[in-house]
Amino acid sequence: MEITGIIETCLYSEKLLALKQFYERLPGVSLIAEEKGRHLFFRCGFQMLLIFDPNHTSVEQTEVNGKRIPLHGAKGAIHIAFSVQNNTIDQWKSLMKRNSIPIESEVTWPNGSVSIYFRDPAGNSLEIAEQGLWN
Amino acid sequence: MEITGIIETCLYSEKLLALKQFYERLPGVSLIAEEKGRHLFFRCGFQMLLIFDPNHTSVEQTEVNGKRIPLHGAKGAIHIAFSVQNNTIDQWKSLMKRNSIPIESEVTWPNGSVSIYFRDPAGNSLEIAEQGLWN
Repeated sequence: MEITGIIETCLYSEKLLALKQFYERLPGVSLIAEEKGRHLFFRCGFQMLLIFDPNHTSVEQTEVNGKRIPLHGAKGAIHIAFSVQNNTIDQWKSLMKRNSIPIESEVTWPNGSVSIYFRDPAGNSLEIAEQGLWN
Repeated sequence: MEITGIIETCLYSEKLLALKQFYERLPGVSLIAEEKGRHLFFRCGFQMLLIFDPNHTSVEQTEVNGKRIPLHGAKGAIHIAFSVQNNTIDQWKSLMKRNSIPIESEVTWPNGSVSIYFRDPAGNSLEIAEQGLWN
């Protein structure tokens, strides 16, 4: 009996339309559900990326089968890192350039893995990291 | 070339000592790095759970090999969900009871998966979800 992984990772923003357009362009990220003005649910590998408008989810009580979903919501720039295949960072940099997404930083870690950093339209700090980063 | 998953999920709080004690007690979550007053890094399955004090990471510039790590930091209650083996929710409920962690809600989803919700000492909304939830 143990936790096997993190199945839901969340971001928060009022700018859901801009975020929908932004994340849909990332290969490997697929929109699977949406409630306009409240949330976007993306599948991403074996995990889910959930984006909520905190002005709704921090105050509006929702229920599933008569049971309450606890309130949540944050403001500020959250960081998440996506994993990608090794030796594809140059391709990702080209993709960012084609999509006019500025690369804020590129870091080579002590173990040789490379990460690039960029922002989503809400200002969240996104990282694309080669798979060996945390090995 | 595509994103294969989310390798880093972040939470933010000033209460790092209380969070360290809390997350270390969750089976499957292991502390692998710590900088007192700034961050806690936990391994969780194939992923990382990173907890930062936003009063530091949103304003203090750090560098790796001469390249800047972008600033980030949020305030409020962030939601994350941990996946666990199917049919272990009763064991998780017993563990929560033994550790005096109140269960805020228990939800049965339309596909039959069961989730329990609880809070960490910083007020983040945590969910323990059976693996089939998003299938």
